[in-house]
Amino acid sequence: MAKEQQFVKNIANIEEDFPQWYTDVVIKTELVDYGPVKGTMVIRPYGYAIWENIQKELNRRFSELGVQNAYFPMLIPESYLMREAEHVEGFAPEVALVTHAGGEKLAENLVVRPTSETIICEMFSKWMQSYRDLPIKINQWANVMRWEKTTRPFLRTSEFLWQEGHTAYATEEDAREDAQKMLKCYSDFAHEFLAIPVFTGVKTEKEKFAGAVETYGMEAMMLDGKSLQAGTTHYLGKNFAKAFNMKFLDKNNALQYAFSTSWGVSTRLIGAIVMAHGDQRGLSLPPKVAPIQVVVIPVAQFKEGVLEKANEITDKLAKMGIRVKLDARDASPGWKFNEWEMKGCPLRLEIGPRDIQENKCVLSTRYNCEKFTLSLDELDTIPALLETIQQNMLEKSRKMRDSKVVEASSLDEIFEGVENKNFVKAHWCGCRECEDAIKNRAAATSRVIVEDAKEGTVCAVCGKKAEKVVLFARAY
Amino acid sequence: MAKEQQFVKNIANIEEDFPQWYTDVVIKTELVDYGPVKGTMVIRPYGYAIWENIQKELNRRFSELGVQNAYFPMLIPESYLMREAEHVEGFAPEVALVTHAGGEKLAENLVVRPTSETIICEMFSKWMQSYRDLPIKINQWANVMRWEKTTRPFLRTSEFLWQEGHTAYATEEDAREDAQKMLKCYSDFAHEFLAIPVFTGVKTEKEKFAGAVETYGMEAMMLDGKSLQAGTTHYLGKNFAKAFNMKFLDKNNALQYAFSTSWGVSTRLIGAIVMAHGDQRGLSLPPKVAPIQVVVIPVAQFKEGVLEKANEITDKLAKMGIRVKLDARDASPGWKFNEWEMKGCPLRLEIGPRDIQENKCVLSTRYNCEKFTLSLDELDTIPALLETIQQNMLEKSRKMRDSKVVEASSLDEIFEGVENKNFVKAHWCGCRECEDAIKNRAAATSRVIVEDAKEGTVCAVCGKKAEKVVLFARAY
Repeated sequence: MAKEQQFVKNIANIEEDFPQWYTDVVIKTELVDYGPVKGTMVIRPYGYAIWENIQKELNRRFSELGVQNAYFPMLIPESYLMREAEHVEGFAPEVALVTHAGGEKLAENLVVRPTSETIICEMFSKWMQSYRDLPIKINQWANVMRWEKTTRPFLRTSEFLWQEGHTAYATEEDAREDAQKMLKCYSDFAHEFLAIPVFTGVKTEKEKFAGAVETYGMEAMMLDGKSLQAGTTHYLGKNFAKAFNMKFLDKNNALQYAFSTSWGVSTRLIGAIVMAHGDQRGLSLPPKVAPIQVVVIPVAQFKEGVLEKANEITDKLAKMGIRVKLDARDASPGWKFNEWEMKGCPLRLEIGPRDIQENKCVLSTRYNCEKFTLSLDELDTIPALLETIQQNMLEKSRKMRDSKVVEASSLDEIFEGVENKNFVKAHWCGCRECEDAIKNRAAATSRVIVEDAKEGTVCAVCGKKAEKVVLFARAY
Repeated sequence: MAKEQQFVKNIANIEEDFPQWYTDVVIKTELVDYGPVKGTMVIRPYGYAIWENIQKELNRRFSELGVQNAYFPMLIPESYLMREAEHVEGFAPEVALVTHAGGEKLAENLVVRPTSETIICEMFSKWMQSYRDLPIKINQWANVMRWEKTTRPFLRTSEFLWQEGHTAYATEEDAREDAQKMLKCYSDFAHEFLAIPVFTGVKTEKEKFAGAVETYGMEAMMLDGKSLQAGTTHYLGKNFAKAFNMKFLDKNNALQYAFSTSWGVSTRLIGAIVMAHGDQRGLSLPPKVAPIQVVVIPVAQFKEGVLEKANEITDKLAKMGIRVKLDARDASPGWKFNEWEMKGCPLRLEIGPRDIQENKCVLSTRYNCEKFTLSLDELDTIPALLETIQQNMLEKSRKMRDSKVVEASSLDEIFEGVENKNFVKAHWCGCRECEDAIKNRAAATSRVIVEDAKEGTVCAVCGKKAEKVVLFARAY
C-alpha cells in the first residue's frame, strides 16, 4: 500500500494538472521518449505495439474497401508544393528543407513531405490513361514532417507516423462519396477498435485542409473536455488534378481532369487512447488495441507448482488467440499489479497456491477495478470477457461524452461551456468573423458542422440568420 | 501466339542485356516506378505487397528471438555522425542534409538517417542503468537515405526501405553471438522464404560496415553470375558505446561499456528475388513471397456457369489460406496467361466449360511451365503443391549456384572466372593490396570469407602464405 501511494504520487494529479498527467503517463509507461532533436519523439516498443495493432486493423478495413498499399518518395521538389496555391500557403511555413546532399548543394531544394498529395498526384497522372484505369485507391504508411518548436509526444511533434490514403476518380460524385466512406471507416474504427466515440462532420472553411474543397473531420473528446482531431478526409475536387495535369480519356475519348481525395490518421491516435481512457493510475487500454490483453501474475511463484500452472494457463490463453504475458520476474505481486495497472493492461489474472488448490484464479479488470474469481475450467470465457470490457469501455466513454455537450446561444455561454470542459453546440451564421470572435473570447475553434440550422434560428455571436449548427471546443 | 511474341519482345533479352531485362521486368510488372527526383523510386502495390510479406515473416522470426519493434527519429544531429571516426568517414559523403526548417536556418544541420546506430545508441544509453536492463533488442522498419546519382530500382536508390536491428549486451560474447544468430536468421529466411540459397561469412576489413568491428554478410548469386549483398549483421564492439557513453552498472556495481550489434535487410531483397528466379517471360515468384499465389482464369467466362464455378474455386482456395485472385476482366484467356506469367504468379488455374463438365481444372506452374489437370475434388492438394513449388525453386537455384562456383589460383584465373559469370573461390594472404589488385584486374570484390586457409596454401595474387579462402565476385 505504501508502494501504491508512492507510485500514484509519481503521476501528476489528473484533475489538477492534466497536461503534466499526460506527459507523466506516456513517459513512465514507456510508450514514448523524447528524441535528441527538439520536436522529435522515439516511439518505444510498448507504444509501437499499439501502433502496429492500429495498422493491422486499418489495413484490414482498407483492403475490404479495395485500397492497396504502396510507398512514395519522402523528398518532394519544392516547386511541387507551389503548384497548388492554398496548399503551399498552408504547408510552406512548417516544412523542413534538404538543401545539400552527396556533398553538394542541390539545384532545387527538396521538401521532406508534410503530406504527399503533390507527389502522388504527379505519379497518378503518369499511371492513368483512360477511365478504365480509374479509380485508383492507394494508401501509404509513412513518416511525415511538420516543423514544431514544442514537443507533445504523439500530439504535436515535428516527425510523426501516419497513413495517408490517396484516390482518383472519374466523377465528382464518386470522389465525394469516397471522402464520406473513409470518414465512416475511421469513425467505425474509432468506436469499435479504440472504444472512442467520435463526432464526425464537415469542417468550416477556416479549419479545412490547405488545398481541399471540403474536409471532413472526426473529433474525439478527451477527459479534460478538449477535442482531439483524430482523423480527416478531404474531397480535393480538381484542385490537385489541375496542378499536376492529372487527366484521363473518358468514354467519349475526351480528356478530363480526375477528381481526387485524401485521408489520414496518425500516431496522434495513441495520444487519443491515453486521454480518452486513462485515470489517476495511468493508462487503461481497450482490449482490441492493447499490446498485452491479459497479464498472468503468479503469487508465491517459488512455491511448487505455481509457475508451472501459470505457464499452463498462459499457453491456454495464447492458444485462444489472446495476447497474453506471464510476468514471472523476481518481484512482489503487488509491485507487478501496480506496474500493469499503470501500463493499462485490460485484464489481470492472479494465480497462487490456494487458487490452484481450489482450481480457480482471480481476475481483475483495469477499467473499473472489478475483482472476481474464475474456475480454471472456465478459462475459455475470457475472450468473451475481453469483448465485454471493450464494449463497456466504449459505453463509459460515450456516457462521459454525452454528459459534456452543452448548447449555447451567446458568446458568454460559449465561453462558459468550454471553460467548464464541455463541447459547445452553437448556431452560426457562417462567417469567418464570428468564428474568430469565438476563438478570441473562448479559445475555442469550430470542430465540425453538426447540421443545417433550422429556419428562424440566429447566430450565437452576431444574431444574424443562422446557417449551421456547429460544435465548438478547445482543441489539441 | 502472335501476342505472346509481341509480349516477349517488350522485355529485353535476358542473355544479351541483363541490366535492361531487369529494368524492363521491374517496371512492366508494376513492381516499381521512377520518382520525380533523381535516385528515387515509387514502390507500387504489387512490389509493396512483396515487401509486406517479407515484413510479416521477418517480424515473426525476430519476435521469436525476443526482438521488439520501435521507431526512432529520422533526423540526426550532424555532430552525432562525427562521434565515431570510421562511421562519419563512411557515411558523410552520401548523406542528405536538412539545413532549414519552419522558415529558419537551423542552428545545427540535421542528417536524414543513412542508418541509425548513432541516434539509437544515444537512446539506449539513456535507457540502460544496470545489467538488469540488458540485453536490449530493438528493430525498426524505416526509410533511409544514401545519396545516389543513378537509379537502379530496389538495387541502388537514394531512399529505400529497410529494417535495422540494434542491440546492446553486457558481454562481448553475447554480442558476437547475436551478430551470428541474426546472420543465421537472415540466411534461413532467404532459403526458406525467398528460395534463394545464399553464401554467408565474415567480410574483409575493406568491405566491412563503417564503424563495425566485424561485419557478416549474406550474398546471393544472381542469374548473371553477379553477387547481391542481401543482408549484413555487424558486431560493433564498444565503438558506438564509447561514442555515446553507453554504460551500465555490472553485478559488481562497476560502470561498463555495453557491446552492441546492428543488422539489416532492405527492399533490395525484391531486386534479389527478380534476379534470382526470373526468366525471359518476366518474374517468377516463390509462393511464400508472392502477393498472389494462385490466379484463377475462367475460359469462355461468359458461358453459363463458368464464372460461378471459378468463383466457387476461388472461395475454396481462399478458405485454405491461399492468396488467390480471380481474374474475370473482359480480356482473352491468352492475354491473361501472358500477364500473369510476366507477373510471376506461381500457379495458374484455368477453368472452362469442358473442364466443368469433366469436374477438373488445368494447372500450370510458372517456374517450370508444367501443365496438368486436377480433379475439382482434389483442390485441397494445392497448398502442398505450392510447398513443392517453393522447394523446387530453391533446389533449382541451388543447382544453378553450385554449378557456378569455381576455384582460381591466379589473378588471370580470377578474371576468367568472373568474366564467365562465376563466383570465384581463391586463397588470399589477407592484405589490402591483393584485394585491390583483384578489383583492378577483374572488377570483382571479396564477398565473404569462406574459411581459414590450410597450412601450406598461398595467395592467388602475391604467392605469399594464404590466410583465408575468400569468395570473389562482381557485385551489385
